[in-house]
Amino acid sequence: MKVTVFLFDDYTALDVVGPYEVLSKLPNCEMFFVGLEKKAYKDSHGLKIIADYNIAEIVQTDILLIPGGLGVDKILKDKVIKEWIQEIAKTSQWILSVCAGSLLLAEAGLLEGKKCTSHWGRKKQLRNYNVIVTDTYERYVHDGKIITSAGVSAGIDMALYFVSIIAGEQTAQMIQLAMEYDPKPPFDCGTPDKAPKELLEKMKQ
Amino acid sequence: MKVTVFLFDDYTALDVVGPYEVLSKLPNCEMFFVGLEKKAYKDSHGLKIIADYNIAEIVQTDILLIPGGLGVDKILKDKVIKEWIQEIAKTSQWILSVCAGSLLLAEAGLLEGKKCTSHWGRKKQLRNYNVIVTDTYERYVHDGKIITSAGVSAGIDMALYFVSIIAGEQTAQMIQLAMEYDPKPPFDCGTPDKAPKELLEKMKQ
Repeated sequence: MKVTVFLFDDYTALDVVGPYEVLSKLPNCEMFFVGLEKKAYKDSHGLKIIADYNIAEIVQTDILLIPGGLGVDKILKDKVIKEWIQEIAKTSQWILSVCAGSLLLAEAGLLEGKKCTSHWGRKKQLRNYNVIVTDTYERYVHDGKIITSAGVSAGIDMALYFVSIIAGEQTAQMIQLAMEYDPKPPFDCGTPDKAPKELLEKMKQ
Repeated sequence: MKVTVFLFDDYTALDVVGPYEVLSKLPNCEMFFVGLEKKAYKDSHGLKIIADYNIAEIVQTDILLIPGGLGVDKILKDKVIKEWIQEIAKTSQWILSVCAGSLLLAEAGLLEGKKCTSHWGRKKQLRNYNVIVTDTYERYVHDGKIITSAGVSAGIDMALYFVSIIAGEQTAQMIQLAMEYDPKPPFDCGTPDKAPKELLEKMKQ
């Protein structure tokens, strides 16, 4: 099973590594990190992950993972990236996105008429496309061969769900136990409807 | 605020990036990735993160973060690493570990007589030291200036708790909302006491 993770500058690190940690534990799985160029890509705070391949070298994959991050806006209209996503998506069995990664899929026309989601702060932007964006705060939305996730941390839940459908519940449960994924967030404020109003106001500033 | 993340080969990627995603959002925070050598370090499945500094270059930090992973066993008795951890810990205001990272702290003598935790599969090993390992599945254990976390994903909960004590609850809540951290794991099997028995048996094999 070939999993391809697309990197670009100013991605969000957890968008990449949350699902990566889950998917890389799939039996017979090979992970490929790819970027426009073969180089180290920086996230928004300086962490550098190496893309061992450029996009010309990876034209086929079983699973495509597109993370989000502030950098999405800079590459959203990049013709070469858009065409690569369109091309590799044709034969990919599955396409997964986290956070603002769904905007890259929408721009490539892959979400046309489909149900999808994104980070809560990106939904307005995603609604500019001809897509059906959920109003509620699902962790992930599955439509056909595409699964889009909510913001950042949601990629972990999405990837576990995904493993359960392609490799069975027991495999997903083993991975969840191996990661000791029994989350206990210190606050109950992870979505706008749960967060105090003054917090949301401060975030918008 | 200077945050130093220690890298070595065969770390667990989410041990690094879970807390990193939280800590890097602290106001006035600078992140430093450091290893025995200045090079790219591979996690257990091939992801490569670059350490921009070697340990001789980083002798002081405000916050030290030690991840875990299978590679811990290979470096546990490394004299140079042990002495570096002992030295930098002297002036660090805070020392955080995720998963098997607590073994490196124990080996350096930093957990002597202290309450601590680790990945559920590593607790037996941690009990070989003169430390007080919790029997229950806390996400993190705070003793003095050291906070040790349970396995892999627990580093996210630990880091949010940590931010709440050093920068206030509102800052921690803003980071939680920015990460859309409202986890909904597809299964309730993240700790050995919750997982089906046959799953645990399979894991032990």
